[in-house]
Amino acid sequence: MKIKEINTMTYDTDEDHTPTQAKHADRLGSASSSDLERVVINKTAVREILDQAKAQGRTSLTAPEGKLVCDAYGIAVPGEGLAKSAADAVALAQGMGFPVVLKIISPEILHKTEAGGVLVGLRSAAEVEQGYATIMANAAKHDPHASLLGVQVQQMIGGGQEVIIGAVTDPSFGKLVAFGLGGVLVEVLKDITFRLAPLNREEALSMLDGIQAAEVLKGVRGAEPVDREALAAMLRSVSQLISDFPEISEMDLNPVFASASGALAADVRIVVDFAPQPERYRPSQDDILRQMNRIMRPDAVAVIGASAEDGKIGNSVMKNLINGGYEGKIYPIHPRAEEIMGRKAYKSVLDVPGGIDVAVFAIPAKFVAQALIEVGKKKIPGAVLIPSGFAETGNVEGQQEIVRIGRQYDVRLMGPNIYGFYYTPKNLCATFCTAYDVKGKAALSSQSGGIGMAIIGFSRSAKMGVSAIVGLGNKSDIDEDDLLTFFEQDDNTEIIAQHFEDLKDGRSFAEVARRVSKKKPIVVLKAGRTSLGARAASSHTGALAGNDKIYEDVFKQAGVIRARSLRDLLEYARGIPKLPVPKGENVVIITGAGGSGVLLSDACVDNELSLMTMPEDLDAAFRKFIPPFGAAGNPVDITGGEPPATYANTIRLGLEDARIHSIILGYWHTIITPPMTFAKLVIEVKEEMKAKGIEKPIVASLAGDVEVEQAAEYLYQHGVPAYAYSTEIPVAVLGAKYKWARGAGLI
Amino acid sequence: MKIKEINTMTYDTDEDHTPTQAKHADRLGSASSSDLERVVINKTAVREILDQAKAQGRTSLTAPEGKLVCDAYGIAVPGEGLAKSAADAVALAQGMGFPVVLKIISPEILHKTEAGGVLVGLRSAAEVEQGYATIMANAAKHDPHASLLGVQVQQMIGGGQEVIIGAVTDPSFGKLVAFGLGGVLVEVLKDITFRLAPLNREEALSMLDGIQAAEVLKGVRGAEPVDREALAAMLRSVSQLISDFPEISEMDLNPVFASASGALAADVRIVVDFAPQPERYRPSQDDILRQMNRIMRPDAVAVIGASAEDGKIGNSVMKNLINGGYEGKIYPIHPRAEEIMGRKAYKSVLDVPGGIDVAVFAIPAKFVAQALIEVGKKKIPGAVLIPSGFAETGNVEGQQEIVRIGRQYDVRLMGPNIYGFYYTPKNLCATFCTAYDVKGKAALSSQSGGIGMAIIGFSRSAKMGVSAIVGLGNKSDIDEDDLLTFFEQDDNTEIIAQHFEDLKDGRSFAEVARRVSKKKPIVVLKAGRTSLGARAASSHTGALAGNDKIYEDVFKQAGVIRARSLRDLLEYARGIPKLPVPKGENVVIITGAGGSGVLLSDACVDNELSLMTMPEDLDAAFRKFIPPFGAAGNPVDITGGEPPATYANTIRLGLEDARIHSIILGYWHTIITPPMTFAKLVIEVKEEMKAKGIEKPIVASLAGDVEVEQAAEYLYQHGVPAYAYSTEIPVAVLGAKYKWARGAGLI
Repeated sequence: MKIKEINTMTYDTDEDHTPTQAKHADRLGSASSSDLERVVINKTAVREILDQAKAQGRTSLTAPEGKLVCDAYGIAVPGEGLAKSAADAVALAQGMGFPVVLKIISPEILHKTEAGGVLVGLRSAAEVEQGYATIMANAAKHDPHASLLGVQVQQMIGGGQEVIIGAVTDPSFGKLVAFGLGGVLVEVLKDITFRLAPLNREEALSMLDGIQAAEVLKGVRGAEPVDREALAAMLRSVSQLISDFPEISEMDLNPVFASASGALAADVRIVVDFAPQPERYRPSQDDILRQMNRIMRPDAVAVIGASAEDGKIGNSVMKNLINGGYEGKIYPIHPRAEEIMGRKAYKSVLDVPGGIDVAVFAIPAKFVAQALIEVGKKKIPGAVLIPSGFAETGNVEGQQEIVRIGRQYDVRLMGPNIYGFYYTPKNLCATFCTAYDVKGKAALSSQSGGIGMAIIGFSRSAKMGVSAIVGLGNKSDIDEDDLLTFFEQDDNTEIIAQHFEDLKDGRSFAEVARRVSKKKPIVVLKAGRTSLGARAASSHTGALAGNDKIYEDVFKQAGVIRARSLRDLLEYARGIPKLPVPKGENVVIITGAGGSGVLLSDACVDNELSLMTMPEDLDAAFRKFIPPFGAAGNPVDITGGEPPATYANTIRLGLEDARIHSIILGYWHTIITPPMTFAKLVIEVKEEMKAKGIEKPIVASLAGDVEVEQAAEYLYQHGVPAYAYSTEIPVAVLGAKYKWARGAGLI
Repeated sequence: MKIKEINTMTYDTDEDHTPTQAKHADRLGSASSSDLERVVINKTAVREILDQAKAQGRTSLTAPEGKLVCDAYGIAVPGEGLAKSAADAVALAQGMGFPVVLKIISPEILHKTEAGGVLVGLRSAAEVEQGYATIMANAAKHDPHASLLGVQVQQMIGGGQEVIIGAVTDPSFGKLVAFGLGGVLVEVLKDITFRLAPLNREEALSMLDGIQAAEVLKGVRGAEPVDREALAAMLRSVSQLISDFPEISEMDLNPVFASASGALAADVRIVVDFAPQPERYRPSQDDILRQMNRIMRPDAVAVIGASAEDGKIGNSVMKNLINGGYEGKIYPIHPRAEEIMGRKAYKSVLDVPGGIDVAVFAIPAKFVAQALIEVGKKKIPGAVLIPSGFAETGNVEGQQEIVRIGRQYDVRLMGPNIYGFYYTPKNLCATFCTAYDVKGKAALSSQSGGIGMAIIGFSRSAKMGVSAIVGLGNKSDIDEDDLLTFFEQDDNTEIIAQHFEDLKDGRSFAEVARRVSKKKPIVVLKAGRTSLGARAASSHTGALAGNDKIYEDVFKQAGVIRARSLRDLLEYARGIPKLPVPKGENVVIITGAGGSGVLLSDACVDNELSLMTMPEDLDAAFRKFIPPFGAAGNPVDITGGEPPATYANTIRLGLEDARIHSIILGYWHTIITPPMTFAKLVIEVKEEMKAKGIEKPIVASLAGDVEVEQAAEYLYQHGVPAYAYSTEIPVAVLGAKYKWARGAGLI
């Protein structure tokens, strides 16, 4: 089958073998039939081959079976056939695509080449027609007595760029398609890229650009560029195949010869696994929302294990709820107490007269199961399981038991082994940690308690307003994607920042993140991203840390911004909501220190920001405000000794001119324009422009003596992320905003 | 010539064509004849070829000339020769190395292959002997009348790994050797590495490991590993050739076929440039020291342009000198004043009765030249040129003039266009910026004034003790390497941190840095490291910013630690001197938060630190102190709810056991072990061990509420670099210490 034809064919939909994986994938909205080009698929053929392999207890398909599977999904493999006439040969060649090889078929002719019985590289119908005649004539001349059965027509392989197309089944992400260049690039440099299957056309094409050596496909050293659509079509066919048939656990097309005229898989390897994958329990998005809204924004909270005794977790939780200013009902649950901290206590949640939205557990692990049954019977939608002593200490059975109970009674579980959570719009501190009260728009979560404490400390210190801080711990049930679903519709949240070491269900995370990231930025810190780190992760939680490259690519595919460090996560959470959405890619640096300009330019490249090429008229306009020896172009170097007016004039121009989309400021401390003077003028100009309806992202780097710290804080509090003694952090924050805006399709 | 033989030959030293470059290189100590393997070199042959090219006005050598040059330096190119007998053929083949190709030579035989006159891939003397006979017999049979002149023996190329060996002349670094793999790896991925020529054996071998795809050379996909010594020898021969003949400006051996049995350069390209390179003025190291010691530690300072008027630069300089507590003599120079700030003023330095060590210029650019002549006549060894208005504003001639004057009178020039400098051991603030007084061991410098101000602000804010802060500005004369030479022998300095955008003389910098970095860590922030950044650099200073990869590799070759950001430069300068030198590579993480442990492990990998594989007995010893569910191995996860004793016991064990060389602490804020309790116990244990003679690097990451900031500061002030809310910065500081210690050969 000629690869080009795939685009004109249609997927066969007259049967429904669609398995869970594929249905699940449909929810991703990534490869609906409407946006797929039309390809004929023969599912029945594949089903028969797989059934046979299953019946025979095999774990892989044979080479001919692999070829048939490829044929059924329009994956081009080298074609071949026997021609008994020149017309036959031409038809065969046209069917499989040029170039072709012709070989004489005759029992008497063993050394075909010597007999003039082989022609390679025939590139047209005319050449094939002529070639057929030549070969027959040569053979007849070579051995007049030989019986000439005809000519074998084989599609020629090789000559293009060798690439690898593969598929794997990841325990967290499910079906993934892989793409790389053949040879050392994949094997030595690990230059490979992954996407969740199935793929739409854009995703498939993005894989070709997703490798370091992408330029090779565009043609280097005199080579023609490869047929990108053909490669993309093959990637999509593979992705559809593995989505349709989850029992295909691994697949390798290696090598695939990609050329200007198509792509041809020279070798096929298919590994099968008929053991059904255990499915994760996934309520519908509506059910998640219904329960999460009650859990996160409760009107009534029960504290199981509430205590009047200082130093007890149940006492800290009570104090935090009451002193934090929570205005809903608080029900202490205690086996004997009549009253705790002025609130009537109950022996069980079942004794509480009114409804309860969430139960916070502050009792030892061994008592959790029984109390959870009572929570279930009371129809409380959520349990916040602070206690440790479950899977993280080896008590896997204990954790499985509470998960079973939760499922049975429809109680969503947060934790166990967590610090609890904060939801500031409700003044809710359902945690044993210190209370937190700086309200704002950032929702943060952490898998680890230690990182949770770092979030709290940083947030308080940096005056980062937060809407929520949530501990997820062992993630026996409630996972990052449940939080995304809640924060998506939470008007108090504008950015979501998550720390985690693994994703229990990476596919669900990606599915939800892809939708949510269109509306609100999602920043993640994936710990255990290096192999050593991954080892530590598995000793910590027993979780299987995935291949980091898979996380990397899936995050990109889902529009998720990845932080490289804890500080980056925190700075992005703090800074991104301060910035308006940029309207385009043109960034301009305005700096009083040439040296800062150079470092800020470096940081722009590091953070994938585009320094605008300054148009002549705009350059001239800037020059009017700066000394004659100030540097031209971008950075706009206003030089060091300038008065406040020079900063004000150039910043105003930068905001006013519609061709500029974002501004990076480099300030240099001088007596002529002291730090707070600079900070105030920046905010003045910003407000002046805002009144005219102009809002652009502005970030600032301040170089100077210690007074610049106060100026940076003033700027930050007024909407300009600003940093003293750093040229890289402000640009990284702007870069993160851009990454999100691009992913969300806003620029 | 067979590549293996190179190692057994000797460099010819009976002539001295050694040019400046090579002599200069000798000072690097990198390729003395004693450590070079013995290779016969024929300089006369190369000289003749170059003389001819020069006479003919050519800019490149012909292919045959290139081959002769290679021959003269033992660089293997494919050999060939005519054999008139089987014995001839064997001798030729043995001389050039197997495998070989044999071809019949006969005017009558045009189609050699058809005549059976070609044999390829002959791998032994026996095969060649036999092959000679076969070819002669075939040819005679093919055409009995042909005159058979003999058999051409050609060394076979191909079949190995294609690599590229090249040489370039960099305006700053001079002669550099380049190495990369052939094909897309160099062209698309820019996977290439550079070293200063000439190379010693270790440096040449390090180039093979200096590329991303280094593994390829060790044999992948069933290939044999290449002959590393042969490649290293070829790299060294090229490096010696270009050092011996500076007129060879560029050279390409591309491709070189590297195999298990040697390396063969299939194609040679040599570009020549006979215009002599202008030499930079370089005093001897002794002269530099003599002058720099007086400039940096003066007993008498003149302020040219001293002023009593607030707001004048000459006033700020006077105030800083006096209020900073400088105890040497201060001579204000002013055309009219009798006295300035209580000090007798002079019209000219020539009027000052005593000697003067340094003159600080605080006058407009146009008056500098005349005053500098007087400084010269007064035999003052150094001028600190604060004024701007020279090359940075386009006044290149003005700058050339003062350089000429400086040279004429032997006055070293700092600047122009700088903030001046601080040298705290002398309480010397020879600058118009704010005074600085936190004494310590870090010497910092910056090319840019803005970055200088950031250094001052950060240092003050972080209580980083400094010995010196120096502005270098336009670097008309005094350069980074002059500062290195001074700080090397300055007992008040333990670490040198430099920001720069270019190096006027990269070769001198590398030469000095290589020596100094053995004694004291050198950290650099090279701005303009990205192409966008480089563009901004050139618009800022008019300096040619070099290819960043060259800087990267030369820094490594010279043992210089490269900071990736301004904050990193500052944090390294602050943290590295706090840490003792580690005695080995075994790093152990001790953490109260498993989540921090994972992130700290990630950071170890990012910073090239080795997490020690925990020996069983040590693991058992740690386990005695931690709860049964604490994680085994490394990180040592003591878990979150532990009392101070658990931290103290595990840290003590970590310090006591000689197999552990460095410790990374992860603290998690709890009520049981509050932040300051933790901080104090760490220092107590550290001091207890120090009393026993045990000192190891310890760094700490603190996760918790805002109190951890105070604890981090306490730790830092007591010798443990500690950071709140960051897992990456403390590990990066430790990693930088290790990079230095490795480069200096201390571990």
